[in-house]
Amino acid sequence: MQDVVPAGRPCESFHDADPSGCGPGPRMPVGDVAGRKNMLQHHFSKEPSLPPTRTTRPRAAVVLSHSLKHELFGPADWADLADVAEVVAECEDSTALSVHPRRHEAEVLVTSWGMPRLTEQVLSDLPALRVVAYAAGSVRGLVSEAVWARDIVVVSAAEANNEPVAEYVYAQTVLALKDVHRRAHRIRTARELPTLDGIPGIYGQRVGLVSFGSIARKVAARLRHLEAHVMAWDPHIPPEALGRLSVEPVDELEDLFARSLVLSVHAPLIPGQTEKLITGELLRRLPHGATLINTARGAVVDEDALVDVLRERPDLYAVLDVTTREPLSPSSPLYALPNVMLTGHVAGTVSGERRAMGRLVIEELRRVADGTSPLHAVSADSSLLRA
Amino acid sequence: MQDVVPAGRPCESFHDADPSGCGPGPRMPVGDVAGRKNMLQHHFSKEPSLPPTRTTRPRAAVVLSHSLKHELFGPADWADLADVAEVVAECEDSTALSVHPRRHEAEVLVTSWGMPRLTEQVLSDLPALRVVAYAAGSVRGLVSEAVWARDIVVVSAAEANNEPVAEYVYAQTVLALKDVHRRAHRIRTARELPTLDGIPGIYGQRVGLVSFGSIARKVAARLRHLEAHVMAWDPHIPPEALGRLSVEPVDELEDLFARSLVLSVHAPLIPGQTEKLITGELLRRLPHGATLINTARGAVVDEDALVDVLRERPDLYAVLDVTTREPLSPSSPLYALPNVMLTGHVAGTVSGERRAMGRLVIEELRRVADGTSPLHAVSADSSLLRA
Repeated sequence: MQDVVPAGRPCESFHDADPSGCGPGPRMPVGDVAGRKNMLQHHFSKEPSLPPTRTTRPRAAVVLSHSLKHELFGPADWADLADVAEVVAECEDSTALSVHPRRHEAEVLVTSWGMPRLTEQVLSDLPALRVVAYAAGSVRGLVSEAVWARDIVVVSAAEANNEPVAEYVYAQTVLALKDVHRRAHRIRTARELPTLDGIPGIYGQRVGLVSFGSIARKVAARLRHLEAHVMAWDPHIPPEALGRLSVEPVDELEDLFARSLVLSVHAPLIPGQTEKLITGELLRRLPHGATLINTARGAVVDEDALVDVLRERPDLYAVLDVTTREPLSPSSPLYALPNVMLTGHVAGTVSGERRAMGRLVIEELRRVADGTSPLHAVSADSSLLRA
Repeated sequence: MQDVVPAGRPCESFHDADPSGCGPGPRMPVGDVAGRKNMLQHHFSKEPSLPPTRTTRPRAAVVLSHSLKHELFGPADWADLADVAEVVAECEDSTALSVHPRRHEAEVLVTSWGMPRLTEQVLSDLPALRVVAYAAGSVRGLVSEAVWARDIVVVSAAEANNEPVAEYVYAQTVLALKDVHRRAHRIRTARELPTLDGIPGIYGQRVGLVSFGSIARKVAARLRHLEAHVMAWDPHIPPEALGRLSVEPVDELEDLFARSLVLSVHAPLIPGQTEKLITGELLRRLPHGATLINTARGAVVDEDALVDVLRERPDLYAVLDVTTREPLSPSSPLYALPNVMLTGHVAGTVSGERRAMGRLVIEELRRVADGTSPLHAVSADSSLLRA
């Protein structure tokens, strides 16, 4: 996140364009261009008890598939969006946008999964663009250098996308510490009721987090309820910052693995850097009865090594929401291992959970319209570090 | 819970008794009997900023198996207990207590699972008894009419015992709404990645609670985080009381079942009243894709009917922590049904989770010693209504 948003620039003049079949009707005059100058200027109200003055209603292009639009915005949400911004173009994909007659007016681009990278060429169709409101998580696949070069503000709904992931990790952690995964499998296959001996219980256990981004922070906050001793490895975060959140900074991944009864992976997949970050050697260090949770990216874990370790160590358990290939090869041993639960990429937002991302985007556009800074802007640096 | 605790009565004089091998050393003089008179008198400090004066250190008999004692009390906890109360007898079971030379001194009985019912005969060995501190959940099996007839205060650690159950129900609810149970089974057996279509998602869904006791209240409080529409059926709780907790009161079980995407059973097993309360007819009313969670007692559900309904309706799923017989008969169809998860009575406190019950008991004894009211006293009426 960044605190200071680049000052707004006046809209470009309107250019003619090929008509397309998508979006709202014929082009309209651009209107009070000068009045929009301060659209993105940081605004501190001198009367905090008064609501900020609505200075403008930014023009927006919305590029979303039909189904995603309805997942992100309920009817009331859509009415809110249309109140906060003037939707000048509504397209199902970027191809339709590229021929939309009012694309040149768009100051804001509201989009989500499925939008291709915003290259110089895509941006050339959007000369007035100042803000990208991305109703999804990582902007890694979306932004290009051209976006930063133009000082376009990129807002991500990752915070809203991340909430359900944190809930999923919390839920799986509770069940892991209750030994539910192994226990349910054993009850079903052995047709017996195991004793309660050796179950760790939910309180006061050691939980390790690999990388400490937004999701890991949310998980750590929830784990306080379980009086957990939360540890994290993240070379990009100063130990003091972790300490302030009552999270123990751990310098070496080997150490984190050796001490974590539940280990949750939250590292981004950075080609050439974090592929197979979680090696077989690390996995073998996990203590007896530990559970590995991966909701990040499958390729962050050496999957062949994981299979070997899970075969060697039936005391370990892996909850894998992500795998290196999705879907897995039908011949993958992960399907058959008794100490694996595959949940098929469901931790991230699904269906109605996505409304929270839609609401975040609307609130960000409201700030833009009011001349205040967005709360969820992503910088060029942070877009690289965070998944 | 009750607000007013019966006034204390002076300790009986010391009686000789057969020696036993258990507990702390030889008998000692009873000491300042008169000073203990106010032990249980309700005390309102007129100077709320000053800590209440420690008026006495009640004499306690502790009846706990070796393993349970260590699950309930860590070394520091045990030191706290011995500081708050004078442990005059420490026995592994009630038989040892019945021959302990100092049993007649005990004003407080600290015990947990495994203690037989406190009948007139058991109580006749404990003439000084004023408080039972039960480091477990339901006191239904523990107390008899004789306990209430003697105005003995019964403190239950149910609140602490219930916390992990609520966490378990919350975790299973999150995973049910993410469709993890069905999905993981399908991925494993069909070796395919199902689409994300039709997954309800965790926000804004309807969750029904059968009975609204302590655990259900804790579950409802947690579900607020998921913006759930929580509904409850409980004939013993006025609708206004539920409304104040933002829980919709539902008069008819049929209605609750018809509307709940997750339905969690929290009814006590009251012989002749709640056996098979959950009939096949009710189960058939559950909406498509619903999940039944039972952490209460197996016999509250008509298990044969449940098997029939789960066979008819593969869209339903049952998370059963309890079953009518524990262990289940090896021939039970529940082992083989693909839409059942059996977790084997693990939702309640296990191992270190029980320390919270030990701490609750110590804090209650501290209140007794300070002359203030226990916070977790159970009345004769509430002991019958709550599991």
